[in-house]
Amino acid sequence: MNNFNLYAPTRILFGKGQIAAISQHVPAGARVMVTYGGGSILRNGVLDQVRQALGERLVAEFGGIEPNPDYATLMRAVETGRAQHVDFLLAVGGGSVADGSKFIAAALHYRGEPWDILSAGGKVESAVPLGVVLTLAATGSEMNAGAVISRRETGDKLFFSSEAVLPRFAVLDPSTMFSLPQRQTANGVVDAFVHTIEQYLTYPANAKVQDRMAEGLLLTLVEEGPRLLAAPEDYEARANVMWAATMALNGYLGAGVPQDWSTHMLGHEITAVHGLDHAQTLAIVLPAMLAARRAPKRAKLLQYAERVWGLREGSEDARIDAAIDATRAFFERMGVPTRLSGHGIREPRLEAILGKLEAHGMTALGERDEVTLDVSRAVLEAAV
Amino acid sequence: MNNFNLYAPTRILFGKGQIAAISQHVPAGARVMVTYGGGSILRNGVLDQVRQALGERLVAEFGGIEPNPDYATLMRAVETGRAQHVDFLLAVGGGSVADGSKFIAAALHYRGEPWDILSAGGKVESAVPLGVVLTLAATGSEMNAGAVISRRETGDKLFFSSEAVLPRFAVLDPSTMFSLPQRQTANGVVDAFVHTIEQYLTYPANAKVQDRMAEGLLLTLVEEGPRLLAAPEDYEARANVMWAATMALNGYLGAGVPQDWSTHMLGHEITAVHGLDHAQTLAIVLPAMLAARRAPKRAKLLQYAERVWGLREGSEDARIDAAIDATRAFFERMGVPTRLSGHGIREPRLEAILGKLEAHGMTALGERDEVTLDVSRAVLEAAV
Repeated sequence: MNNFNLYAPTRILFGKGQIAAISQHVPAGARVMVTYGGGSILRNGVLDQVRQALGERLVAEFGGIEPNPDYATLMRAVETGRAQHVDFLLAVGGGSVADGSKFIAAALHYRGEPWDILSAGGKVESAVPLGVVLTLAATGSEMNAGAVISRRETGDKLFFSSEAVLPRFAVLDPSTMFSLPQRQTANGVVDAFVHTIEQYLTYPANAKVQDRMAEGLLLTLVEEGPRLLAAPEDYEARANVMWAATMALNGYLGAGVPQDWSTHMLGHEITAVHGLDHAQTLAIVLPAMLAARRAPKRAKLLQYAERVWGLREGSEDARIDAAIDATRAFFERMGVPTRLSGHGIREPRLEAILGKLEAHGMTALGERDEVTLDVSRAVLEAAV
Repeated sequence: MNNFNLYAPTRILFGKGQIAAISQHVPAGARVMVTYGGGSILRNGVLDQVRQALGERLVAEFGGIEPNPDYATLMRAVETGRAQHVDFLLAVGGGSVADGSKFIAAALHYRGEPWDILSAGGKVESAVPLGVVLTLAATGSEMNAGAVISRRETGDKLFFSSEAVLPRFAVLDPSTMFSLPQRQTANGVVDAFVHTIEQYLTYPANAKVQDRMAEGLLLTLVEEGPRLLAAPEDYEARANVMWAATMALNGYLGAGVPQDWSTHMLGHEITAVHGLDHAQTLAIVLPAMLAARRAPKRAKLLQYAERVWGLREGSEDARIDAAIDATRAFFERMGVPTRLSGHGIREPRLEAILGKLEAHGMTALGERDEVTLDVSRAVLEAAV
């Protein structure tokens, strides 16, 4: 096991009716701005519950944070927060709202040009305290320090991370997801699955607890994901998937082990060039990536085959093939295509995607820096 | 899954050489008192590393905190802390030192009689900030809010819990355990194993992530525990056991699920009456407890049999028998007897033990309050 520094201080308030509990975790006398995205939380009663829990502490609302939250939008929220002397943020939504609100929280305290936080490594020493009411299980942002922010004006998509923006609490009420569209439910399951794989399916590091936890999350997603498509209001299945998605990226899986993340990096560029959803790109890249790197990942692929898919018969190569096939079949069963052609993209813009990878310095990805542009090209060609 | 409120903000600094990292996590200018137990940390270099990391922040040392830390000892530490205007505590040792230091931290801030914290539910609103350098993996105290304190003068053994005493950080360097006596190593493995069982082996609550995590910890302890007896300086095995023991009681396993803890309650009284180590009592009680409650625990016993011990053949009853036998055999393999007679106790003082249980109100234990004094009697009789 490698050394690690694990810090996951976000309080999780999990279950039915827990939105009311935020009243105990937002300071009395706080001046709270609620941030959110589209209108679904207006329709399903979530925003009403939040307003009721906050009472007079609610001094501002800022809606319209879009998927892949835009810098310009967020800076308007910063203006609102400043004007209202806001000293607590409550993000109500999915990963984009959480990520965007982390940036707002940091920018409200930042001395200097906030764009530097994203583009120039400007250090975020403090931030307005932040809570999250999660309404879409997927990204894990509700319990970690990272955020991805886009700037449409310049075509940038940048990441920052700071312990100062770790949410103070996150409310996870599975019933808030009953009305999600199938596509978002499925994308969330795929996203959590691939987050887990990126921290697990590398090379053996003798981290037995982390391996078993990862396998447990994968098994849970495989069992419960398809159930959600059949029964969107199955509370227990929603609960298991919601908790699995948070656990997949709160730091516990990745503590003390090598990490990959090459599937994510290729996926980001596919989204930039072809406009697919983030999880859609992961479902396309991962099976091809595993096939291309079956040699360096051999030991963990065999472990994955046995412990997640129960594959114990046949030659090692046959088990690896079967595990990759099972991964692909799982995504397809979730209604998420695993080839670019599944989205009608029969001639992907390979040079544009590879050019972006190169421009972003993504020329030696993966747990052993082995994913060169040539490997990325082969993966993309195999993913058509 | 049941609702839960999970808060585990302790920063984990894990691995070789991490004691040096405490210098980054104790405030500059802090006035630190180091608390510890016996002399082992003097001999193995751990205290020297701590002194070096703290430098001028170290203003007091308080040694001599005993196993089952005594109120009188701890109150002497409080006096030292007050005299030295201490504003940070660093506990260096195992669970007893961590527990004792939590009480010292609370008592230093408490207005009123500190004994009330233990005996009268005195609420701990704040405490001196506390860090832990763990040198014995077992109790999980390094990452939770609880502490058990004894008062030899009155024969009391009492518990308190407060988020104010959650350690700010815990250093887990597996190599600090290389020189542990076999008995302490074995006790630690059994303690972590039974902590896990108490939160897992109850009745199904459809908490798939928690179940898989628990099974992962059990499998890790079963695989790595015996290895440690054969090779006490196996860093990887120490690391896996150390991390498993912390994860076994930091709140994640018990979140959203029923919990038992009857084995612990019986064990406490056996320690009080017969003086066995805490883990020794757990190894004696658990197999008998599982056998006595095989009906209400049937579904989880079958799951445990399959997923932890690989038992898939034979009748359900045969698999349950085999799982209980395997549990017993594991403890024995760790060198920890699983019957009172294994410690030479052929005529246990049943009435004294049951009398204490009754006096402490322990007359309806377990996840469904089903462990009456009659059940406890039967368990104890079966454990001779």
